[in-house]
Amino acid sequence: MSHADSISFPIGSSDNNAPATAASGIPASGDVLARVKSQEDVRNLSHEDLNALAQQVRRRIIEVIATKGGHFGSPLGAVEITVALLHVFDPLKDRIVWDVGHQAYAWKILTGRNDRFETIRQHGGLSGFLKRSENPADVFGAGHASTSIAAAYGMAQARDRQKKDHKVVAVIGDGSMTGGMAYEALNNAGLQRTNMMVLFNDNEMSISQNVWAVHKGLSSLITNPAYNNLKQDIKKMVRGLMGQRAVSTAHTMEGAVKGMLMAGPALFFEELGFRYIGPVDGHDLDQLIPIMRGASELEGPICLHVITKKGKGLTYAEADPIKYHAATQNMKIETGDMVKTDAPPAYTKVFGTTLTEIAAKDERVVAITAAMDGGTGTDIFATAFPERFYDVGIAEECAVTMAAGMAAEGMVPVCAIYSTFLQRAFDQILHDVALQHLPVRFVLDRGGLVGADGPTHHGSFDLTYMRLVPGMVLMAPRDEQELRRMLRTQIAYNDGPSAMRYPRGNATGAIDLATTEYPPLEIGKGEILQHGEKIALLGIGLMTQHFLKAAPLIEAKLGFKVTVADARFVKPLDRDMIVGLAQSHALLFTAEDNTIRGGFGSAVNELLAEENTGRNSIPFGLPDEFVDHGTPRELYRDLGLLPEQLAERIVTEFQKRTK
Amino acid sequence: MSHADSISFPIGSSDNNAPATAASGIPASGDVLARVKSQEDVRNLSHEDLNALAQQVRRRIIEVIATKGGHFGSPLGAVEITVALLHVFDPLKDRIVWDVGHQAYAWKILTGRNDRFETIRQHGGLSGFLKRSENPADVFGAGHASTSIAAAYGMAQARDRQKKDHKVVAVIGDGSMTGGMAYEALNNAGLQRTNMMVLFNDNEMSISQNVWAVHKGLSSLITNPAYNNLKQDIKKMVRGLMGQRAVSTAHTMEGAVKGMLMAGPALFFEELGFRYIGPVDGHDLDQLIPIMRGASELEGPICLHVITKKGKGLTYAEADPIKYHAATQNMKIETGDMVKTDAPPAYTKVFGTTLTEIAAKDERVVAITAAMDGGTGTDIFATAFPERFYDVGIAEECAVTMAAGMAAEGMVPVCAIYSTFLQRAFDQILHDVALQHLPVRFVLDRGGLVGADGPTHHGSFDLTYMRLVPGMVLMAPRDEQELRRMLRTQIAYNDGPSAMRYPRGNATGAIDLATTEYPPLEIGKGEILQHGEKIALLGIGLMTQHFLKAAPLIEAKLGFKVTVADARFVKPLDRDMIVGLAQSHALLFTAEDNTIRGGFGSAVNELLAEENTGRNSIPFGLPDEFVDHGTPRELYRDLGLLPEQLAERIVTEFQKRTK
Repeated sequence: MSHADSISFPIGSSDNNAPATAASGIPASGDVLARVKSQEDVRNLSHEDLNALAQQVRRRIIEVIATKGGHFGSPLGAVEITVALLHVFDPLKDRIVWDVGHQAYAWKILTGRNDRFETIRQHGGLSGFLKRSENPADVFGAGHASTSIAAAYGMAQARDRQKKDHKVVAVIGDGSMTGGMAYEALNNAGLQRTNMMVLFNDNEMSISQNVWAVHKGLSSLITNPAYNNLKQDIKKMVRGLMGQRAVSTAHTMEGAVKGMLMAGPALFFEELGFRYIGPVDGHDLDQLIPIMRGASELEGPICLHVITKKGKGLTYAEADPIKYHAATQNMKIETGDMVKTDAPPAYTKVFGTTLTEIAAKDERVVAITAAMDGGTGTDIFATAFPERFYDVGIAEECAVTMAAGMAAEGMVPVCAIYSTFLQRAFDQILHDVALQHLPVRFVLDRGGLVGADGPTHHGSFDLTYMRLVPGMVLMAPRDEQELRRMLRTQIAYNDGPSAMRYPRGNATGAIDLATTEYPPLEIGKGEILQHGEKIALLGIGLMTQHFLKAAPLIEAKLGFKVTVADARFVKPLDRDMIVGLAQSHALLFTAEDNTIRGGFGSAVNELLAEENTGRNSIPFGLPDEFVDHGTPRELYRDLGLLPEQLAERIVTEFQKRTK
Repeated sequence: MSHADSISFPIGSSDNNAPATAASGIPASGDVLARVKSQEDVRNLSHEDLNALAQQVRRRIIEVIATKGGHFGSPLGAVEITVALLHVFDPLKDRIVWDVGHQAYAWKILTGRNDRFETIRQHGGLSGFLKRSENPADVFGAGHASTSIAAAYGMAQARDRQKKDHKVVAVIGDGSMTGGMAYEALNNAGLQRTNMMVLFNDNEMSISQNVWAVHKGLSSLITNPAYNNLKQDIKKMVRGLMGQRAVSTAHTMEGAVKGMLMAGPALFFEELGFRYIGPVDGHDLDQLIPIMRGASELEGPICLHVITKKGKGLTYAEADPIKYHAATQNMKIETGDMVKTDAPPAYTKVFGTTLTEIAAKDERVVAITAAMDGGTGTDIFATAFPERFYDVGIAEECAVTMAAGMAAEGMVPVCAIYSTFLQRAFDQILHDVALQHLPVRFVLDRGGLVGADGPTHHGSFDLTYMRLVPGMVLMAPRDEQELRRMLRTQIAYNDGPSAMRYPRGNATGAIDLATTEYPPLEIGKGEILQHGEKIALLGIGLMTQHFLKAAPLIEAKLGFKVTVADARFVKPLDRDMIVGLAQSHALLFTAEDNTIRGGFGSAVNELLAEENTGRNSIPFGLPDEFVDHGTPRELYRDLGLLPEQLAERIVTEFQKRTK
């Protein structure tokens, strides 16, 4: 199939099993999708309707995501799987547990949410991930990877304790198989001989690249030429033996030989106690449905191995699954062209570029990420220094302890992981890094509210969970120049761990990145950005910008100039500056895009108590609850954290407290 | 070997390879141990000396641990492995990374620390685990399991980047193989074809029971009778083929067939990209040393599979490895009798007993632990309700998400994990439990300072990392009755997650556990234990006891009665009580056996700031640093947190602030 073939109408062009589709997109069997109103309607569809439905769902996903933005690759790859699951299982009685919910767009469309599918990832609309509160078919939420097998195992055990008999299925991609907890759960479910199915959705492609060794499988055996000769000999022998035995025995034996000869995922699952079935073409419903049905009737832990293609049905997405993992808004469906904006470079890119510049002059610098090379900007580094770049898969624990090992050997490891995903390695940060005073440099992208991905992806807790780590140096930049200086500071600081966190999205654009130097900062020194009186505004990271914008609004209302300072460091705090601000102003406000529980504002109040100042600071920050999805602006507005809202709250508080 | 044989002199009685030992314990080749002064001395010993050395080290471990207490099973199992490693590798040039340091007592003895081995786990003495700051041979610290492969992988990659050529070895037990991060690291090291060795120390026994599915291996194949017939057929065929081919080819083929027929660990490691060698008898130096040397010379990722026996050389410890995982002080070497004390029951036992009582009346209650059934007291529950008990291995992530799955299905999961180990599941607590408001009941034993196990095992951070979780109900009991009431509260509370944490060690003994009722508490209500004036002492958990004992000392000094209160809940705080205490007293002190960074005291100061009280509380707690090992009393004394020290600090502070 050439790319030229597909430009005119790329949808479905690579799908051999689909019924003929007219240019209108309505196949011969009519608008089946319109007839699927509730979770259970797919169960009763005919063979032809099911095939038509898959195409209609695929088109629906493409049209909505191209307009609204969202994930592309995984949802398109899982369309037939979804149709088959809803046909074979009862989504309200059985438990279908999806791993990382963005596979599950078709699931949303087919379980009563088609009419709201345009609202996906919009403020107040459908979540981009699975969500228990959204629909009874979403039996377990998923935003972080590798959780489905553990959750399904718990559900299956609960079912057995309750003497019920419904089915439990975990649907997990190969990317998620690189995460340790998937393995932990397989191990337990296998040992306990739990009645459950793991539907292994294998596209040999996690978000970025394939990092699962099992795909290569039995390396030393397979690369051995003798192995292939032997395989032929065994096959011959088995054919001979089959003549001498009863058919059923021979059949079983064939399975056994197949088991011994097959490499990779089959053996892996078998060893962990699962009975392996597959591989099955995950886009061929004629094959998938009967095999899934058969597998669903077996006892014990079953692995059904399904081969799919990311971006299936959209030629350019199949050809470049990394680019089309997700789409921005207003993509051209025909060509896949995505709209580019003239916005300032993202913090992500500033980090990646700066790291690469620094690494060019320092051979000790290595970069480590966990399945997020593009997302963290380390792809820029990887292009320049492939041999110094490590993508460990969805394996944050391994990433952090590996980085500790490298630091112990005198390297300069930069461990770039999203704020929310680094939660996975909290223990390793404490024990393998901080306890040993090892200078691992943590770079946390997506600190604060990330927007459309919602509560599973907001970086709402890092200032708290990193601040409690003894010896951690913890920073957050207010702009791209500060980011560069903080990264420089991290590289220079070799006495223990350090961390920098910054938000998703575009930098301020105020800095000429081509020419400016970026010297390191003094550890633990904040900066007073404007001197004023009575009111001191002490921000960290993004919220320093909000305070800077709030200050003139406050000044216009109250008639005097206020002080604005950037703490820069959450740990160690700039004691002199902060105590000074508290003592020389009537009110000290702090603001952070992190939970107020134990975060930056809490640290400032700890300091004021320890220094016996007899004063409190007044904290603004994320509330002690999970924040939903929406654009960051919408969410900060909901929380009263936009500059104009902060200004109003501060004026009110000042008037109340000083009258 | 009968138990009767060994009572008279159990040491070494089961070791066929050891040279004859006289009753004096000094073997024929003299006191080899005395000649091993530094890390490199084992390299040059003769075959006979090495065997004698192993026996002398084994005796040394037994004698010291029987007197001083400590781990038994793992260290005795790893004696010959240690001797072989030090003979084959250069411990100062090569990198030997131990997983969970308590395997490594022989390592400590043989790397220049024999003269201080009696001080192990004592205050100011050797650590019970590996420690980088203790000795250059301890290249990577280890207290929590499953970290060694990731650390070794990082070290091996650092070596390659630095173009050095030393060897890197991770020594990992089968218990640690149940932890996800071991798998993550195998996957990466295998994919990258890293030159490193994983020495898989396999005693088919983690701390409690075998929970690794791979040991059972290829279950559905092996349990199939046809498989065994086929195995015979293949063997015959290979014997036939060997006659027709060159010897080398036949030899390779034999290896290939062996590879296909072997089950369990071999295939597992091969699939993850490791070349498998083994199994080798881990107590037979004649076999172990040459094979280890040969394996060390191979390229790529190598797994050397070594079979050992926990408690090796001490008959009763071999026979009951669970009991002799660790010994208390003053064990009788001849019989293995451990001294029993008349102390009040440990909190652990109170929890286990109470949970069992509650579960007897509530079938929904299930208990989940991570390789710590005895340590958490869930062994009591497991005996009563084996079908409702889950030990998932060293797999805290799986434990928590599995519990979430069970809670989603209406069960009442009690997830009992040490405070420090639950750090491994921080992300799962946030996303899989709290975000979904699932009522998983967390029970954190070993909150606060644990004593001899030191910084990797102290529960110093839980009040902070659990407090930041939105919707978490977080409690700490001051005595065993409160523990029972809090557990009852957790069982009754079904609207979201809850957690209770309590210290290692004995309860107060003040409560008659046989007869007292234990009604649930009102969520978020503290308790004023004595009413006084000017000074309010607000404790949580163990520190409430310290405050109760400090109060009369303070009163004797200052001449007035002080107020003592128990917060009970760290989240939600008792706002009315705490604000009231702050406003009606000149000074409010808090105390916790948790870091002061973001912990209970921090929460109280947040509250006082939010409520606009214009007051601070003065926090006592663990300092913002890692606390070393020693008895809890020694450690609390070092930190000034004993009751009499608190009293003095409070009196001083009162006099300073009110004069």
